[in-house]
Amino acid sequence: MAVRKLKVGCAGLGRMGARHALNFLNRTPRAELVAAFTPDANEVAWARRELEPSGVVIYTDYEEMLKHPGLEAVVVATVTTAHAEEAIKAIHADKHVLCEKPLSTSVEVSQSVVEAAAKRPHLKVMCGFSRRFDKSYREAYERMDAGGIGRPSVFRSQTCDRLDPSGFFVAYAEFSGGIFVDCNIHDIDLSLWFLGQDSVVKSVVAMGICAVQPELRKHKDVDNGVGVVEFWNGKMAYFYSSRMMAAGQHDMTEIIGTEGKLAVNANPMGSLVEMYESTGVRREIPHDYYGRFMDAFVTEANEFTAACLDNSRLPFKLSGAVQAVAIGCALQESLNSGKKIHFDETGRRIEQPKL
Amino acid sequence: MAVRKLKVGCAGLGRMGARHALNFLNRTPRAELVAAFTPDANEVAWARRELEPSGVVIYTDYEEMLKHPGLEAVVVATVTTAHAEEAIKAIHADKHVLCEKPLSTSVEVSQSVVEAAAKRPHLKVMCGFSRRFDKSYREAYERMDAGGIGRPSVFRSQTCDRLDPSGFFVAYAEFSGGIFVDCNIHDIDLSLWFLGQDSVVKSVVAMGICAVQPELRKHKDVDNGVGVVEFWNGKMAYFYSSRMMAAGQHDMTEIIGTEGKLAVNANPMGSLVEMYESTGVRREIPHDYYGRFMDAFVTEANEFTAACLDNSRLPFKLSGAVQAVAIGCALQESLNSGKKIHFDETGRRIEQPKL
Amino acid sequence: MAVRKLKVGCAGLGRMGARHALNFLNRTPRAELVAAFTPDANEVAWARRELEPSGVVIYTDYEEMLKHPGLEAVVVATVTTAHAEEAIKAIHADKHVLCEKPLSTSVEVSQSVVEAAAKRPHLKVMCGFSRRFDKSYREAYERMDAGGIGRPSVFRSQTCDRLDPSGFFVAYAEFSGGIFVDCNIHDIDLSLWFLGQDSVVKSVVAMGICAVQPELRKHKDVDNGVGVVEFWNGKMAYFYSSRMMAAGQHDMTEIIGTEGKLAVNANPMGSLVEMYESTGVRREIPHDYYGRFMDAFVTEANEFTAACLDNSRLPFKLSGAVQAVAIGCALQESLNSGKKIHFDETGRRIEQPKL
Amino acid sequence: MAVRKLKVGCAGLGRMGARHALNFLNRTPRAELVAAFTPDANEVAWARRELEPSGVVIYTDYEEMLKHPGLEAVVVATVTTAHAEEAIKAIHADKHVLCEKPLSTSVEVSQSVVEAAAKRPHLKVMCGFSRRFDKSYREAYERMDAGGIGRPSVFRSQTCDRLDPSGFFVAYAEFSGGIFVDCNIHDIDLSLWFLGQDSVVKSVVAMGICAVQPELRKHKDVDNGVGVVEFWNGKMAYFYSSRMMAAGQHDMTEIIGTEGKLAVNANPMGSLVEMYESTGVRREIPHDYYGRFMDAFVTEANEFTAACLDNSRLPFKLSGAVQAVAIGCALQESLNSGKKIHFDETGRRIEQPKL
Repeated sequence: MAVRKLKVGCAGLGRMGARHALNFLNRTPRAELVAAFTPDANEVAWARRELEPSGVVIYTDYEEMLKHPGLEAVVVATVTTAHAEEAIKAIHADKHVLCEKPLSTSVEVSQSVVEAAAKRPHLKVMCGFSRRFDKSYREAYERMDAGGIGRPSVFRSQTCDRLDPSGFFVAYAEFSGGIFVDCNIHDIDLSLWFLGQDSVVKSVVAMGICAVQPELRKHKDVDNGVGVVEFWNGKMAYFYSSRMMAAGQHDMTEIIGTEGKLAVNANPMGSLVEMYESTGVRREIPHDYYGRFMDAFVTEANEFTAACLDNSRLPFKLSGAVQAVAIGCALQESLNSGKKIHFDETGRRIEQPKL
Repeated sequence: MAVRKLKVGCAGLGRMGARHALNFLNRTPRAELVAAFTPDANEVAWARRELEPSGVVIYTDYEEMLKHPGLEAVVVATVTTAHAEEAIKAIHADKHVLCEKPLSTSVEVSQSVVEAAAKRPHLKVMCGFSRRFDKSYREAYERMDAGGIGRPSVFRSQTCDRLDPSGFFVAYAEFSGGIFVDCNIHDIDLSLWFLGQDSVVKSVVAMGICAVQPELRKHKDVDNGVGVVEFWNGKMAYFYSSRMMAAGQHDMTEIIGTEGKLAVNANPMGSLVEMYESTGVRREIPHDYYGRFMDAFVTEANEFTAACLDNSRLPFKLSGAVQAVAIGCALQESLNSGKKIHFDETGRRIEQPKL
Repeated sequence: MAVRKLKVGCAGLGRMGARHALNFLNRTPRAELVAAFTPDANEVAWARRELEPSGVVIYTDYEEMLKHPGLEAVVVATVTTAHAEEAIKAIHADKHVLCEKPLSTSVEVSQSVVEAAAKRPHLKVMCGFSRRFDKSYREAYERMDAGGIGRPSVFRSQTCDRLDPSGFFVAYAEFSGGIFVDCNIHDIDLSLWFLGQDSVVKSVVAMGICAVQPELRKHKDVDNGVGVVEFWNGKMAYFYSSRMMAAGQHDMTEIIGTEGKLAVNANPMGSLVEMYESTGVRREIPHDYYGRFMDAFVTEANEFTAACLDNSRLPFKLSGAVQAVAIGCALQESLNSGKKIHFDETGRRIEQPKL
Repeated sequence: MAVRKLKVGCAGLGRMGARHALNFLNRTPRAELVAAFTPDANEVAWARRELEPSGVVIYTDYEEMLKHPGLEAVVVATVTTAHAEEAIKAIHADKHVLCEKPLSTSVEVSQSVVEAAAKRPHLKVMCGFSRRFDKSYREAYERMDAGGIGRPSVFRSQTCDRLDPSGFFVAYAEFSGGIFVDCNIHDIDLSLWFLGQDSVVKSVVAMGICAVQPELRKHKDVDNGVGVVEFWNGKMAYFYSSRMMAAGQHDMTEIIGTEGKLAVNANPMGSLVEMYESTGVRREIPHDYYGRFMDAFVTEANEFTAACLDNSRLPFKLSGAVQAVAIGCALQESLNSGKKIHFDETGRRIEQPKL
């Protein structure tokens, strides 16, 4: 006798895709990874070694994978520029979809995924905002929701990557959508979660500098950015993103309420070890986002699987992904125009501030 | 095509047994939980609900389970008093064994397990010192081993349980072997790991009090104990155990070397959330050992499985479990006699200190 | 034989003035508090009790105090609106001056103090930016100056007051200059110290909300504000100020460089005590700025005294106080106009962003 | 008009004596340092430079200093071997005395100071247990006293010095009384404060090693020691002292009660600065006890002065200093004999444990 398992295919086996594939293979008891797709020869070789022995069929054509017998769900973890098209194709092929963030760097394209999904309401289509599955963020949300900080009012959040002197981020910036869309998208999504998914933006402004990678300017990007978002409900959020942290990844968040404050990961740590040395007391911190959010990705895989199998609700709506991209794009525009951007109570863009 | 998986049976489905069963079922990709044994009706009911649907066969007779077709390995997680007998039976039935700590509260009985295992060297027999699999302890060991603190010299370690006002620990003390055998056994095992498995004890002394549970005295036990162990190699260890921590579980360790110190979990935390409230800044800490060591048990299950399947070495020797029990028993004896106990360089007990 | 001591008079004996008076009386060995002025009857009573027995002469007329025989230096710690006038009078009376911050909430009036001082270069005239004397800020500056974080690039700083439900801050806002001038003035001054006193502002923008004190709007103020300042030298700063911290005062700063980051008081604490309780681990934090900066005020008094007696250089220039007020006022204007404000490379205000 | 000030003389101007002298000179408003004594030429030179210009008369003969006109109080901060004799001489000369710890490394000699003081009850005679004046220890005591941790039961405390490779501690050990008398005397005194000054010792045991300074054995001392003390009131204390901390001074204490725990300085820090570097997050810690307790010495000077001037009670009794030395000496004896030492309920030494 066997428990019914969700048959999953994974599109994309790069850095994040490989992790998703292994999580669905080994750490998602109710799922069965049956197929994987990648057009990349190195990734195919990796898959033959790591996935095929467990019975996963490897595809180099995405549409072929969609035809895999019995396939029920697809994880889209290819390059950002392919997310939306592949997600829509999977929806049309009647598959559940877990799509890596962002759906697209374009608001319109992101919206097209939402519309495709809306036509197949029996499908579970989710954008992979991994922090929504993080144990600490969830605990913070529950404490806030239980009234622990009064009325949440100011939201501060940062996504700070470790300095990568290889120049990777310069090339990456061409398609990433910019630092506010690529990095702060997580913080923006969190701000909507904590301040209310129905919060309407009143104004946004962003500023930034190229402290270590001046070449980023040619892609209209920066390596350190600060953005501020004001909402019509009297709340506000501010964000910081950086590509030059010496110590490692430091993503942190504060939710400041009228009666208290919650801080998530204000003091990053890679383990519970502290070293007392002649130079003082030291601890290491995670080097990348996966070191920080590894368990959240496993939870994401398990909850997505459960929602598909049990036809239960996903923990958040797909449309939020469009909201987040819209705010990220507005911040990126403000960064580049040097101007503050204003909206009216309906979210329509206006020229002058409405006080 | 399928990957070969280790067929595992779990004996005991109490608090820890149920966790082992679920870990082998869901979080150990190379293992397959095929059988489970418990004589307890409530645990059987739980197993029918949680394990049977996944194909696990439930037994109420341990020896029957050992005959389960194809069974290769057994996890012994019943009450401590049954550990040794069940481990030996499994060895005689030619099964690999992962036995919960301690093998026994008696040195002689513990030794009998080691001897049974020694006659079947092709079997993997391991005592479940879960902290050996903890990421932070391993990191500390690697740093020490790489010379990060010079020569390790003083070892301090504590196992402190959350206060349980139910009186559970009083009844439990009848068979636990006492606080130094039950709690500090982990710290003692860690001291041997960090100071050298071949360290020979020179003297031990222990003192303790009953601060919250005076009835413990009838079982020759205490709720707070301090033990000190001196080794012939010029190193020393000291231990603290307690059953009355208000805030939760706090197990921590310091390894003090001639050039530095490593601290593991000096600052316990249950998550990455900090709360700023009118009473100050607060964080919660794990309420029990499982909240602290959950991941270590999963690693334990996976590494035990890999050693069985690949015939590779276990990370530590079974005989260490006897050493640890011997030290724990000597501390417990010192607690009750009020006397310090001395040994010569060969580990033989002597009456007077040898200076 | 006696050491020569600086004869000091203190103007204003309110919250801060009384502290200055006591610091000069008891904790500044090279100074002698000889006079004090206050027009307030309660404060006079306090001074008769606390200061007069030590030989301090109490005045209710500021100009009379200036004529006190032998008086050499004046501490101006009256209400902000009186700072500039009293400072200038003291300068004209040929006294050294330590003036509480800000010199004025008006840039022009602040500048007039600088000009008065410039005409008497033998006098020491200092604005009391107390954080410049804080041991931790100084340590951070030295580490940065020694190259510890590469090139400082992004500066983040916050001044967060404990929630005062009495409504005090509403009345106070009428004359405070607003949250960016009153609170963030310290952070702004620090940003100029750390990023370079010659940094020229390129643009400023501010946003804010009234989360707990809606009546602040009538004084064009907010209880939570975020401001961003971009400099022409490729550096940037962002600030947060709040009047609603539940846990207490939390002023903190980060200096982010190309090779590292320095954090000052990221983890506030009122003492070295941690409490382990049934609700977790807790510590208290200072309730007000004086709990955090008490020692800095003592250092300030001693260094000001030494500069006067030894005719040595003050640790920073008076003109910086005008720069800080100018930035604070621009942020406050941006908050109220809803617009970003731009400047050219010479610091001249311009209408459109110069990219 | 002048406030009446206590006329103080300081005996000994070595490391600690110079600090006392400067504290009484500059940071004790109600005291006037009028005299200082040292037989050491270098210290005399220092005193001529640092103290004489402020009117302090320098003596090279202790008894001469005692005759200084108007002298009211003496700080004894010479070498430990001189403490008792000088304290007694000062008492006989009718001076108040603040004597550095320990009164003597001998219980009998310590007791003779108590007896001398008892004959002049109008004099204030205090042993300089500086930690009793530390803000954090006082806060911990108040929290405990207010019931914050239920009934205090287990006391853990350590005094850990920074590694000094110069060999200083070897020579020092000849007269220090040993690590338990020299270092842990503070922890022992604290244990009596927190567990009750009337606690009667039931047994003591100590063990130790020479990890970095093997030559210490010739003075019957060690560089790392652990001691355990059991009291007849059902409470216990355990102590650790070390001379080989790489990171700096780390003195810390835990008071463990039936309903909570207080930790003092579990996380040492030299300032509020944290450094984020490529090797992780780092902070420095104080290098010596003065870096940790500087403010406590100032409070000590001020409170001693106030007690003398106002004839108010000192914060603790002189006899406690004898209790602490007695426990320290017993621990040192146990260390060297290898035996546990037992006492009956009246504090009389007995051969066998009384259970």
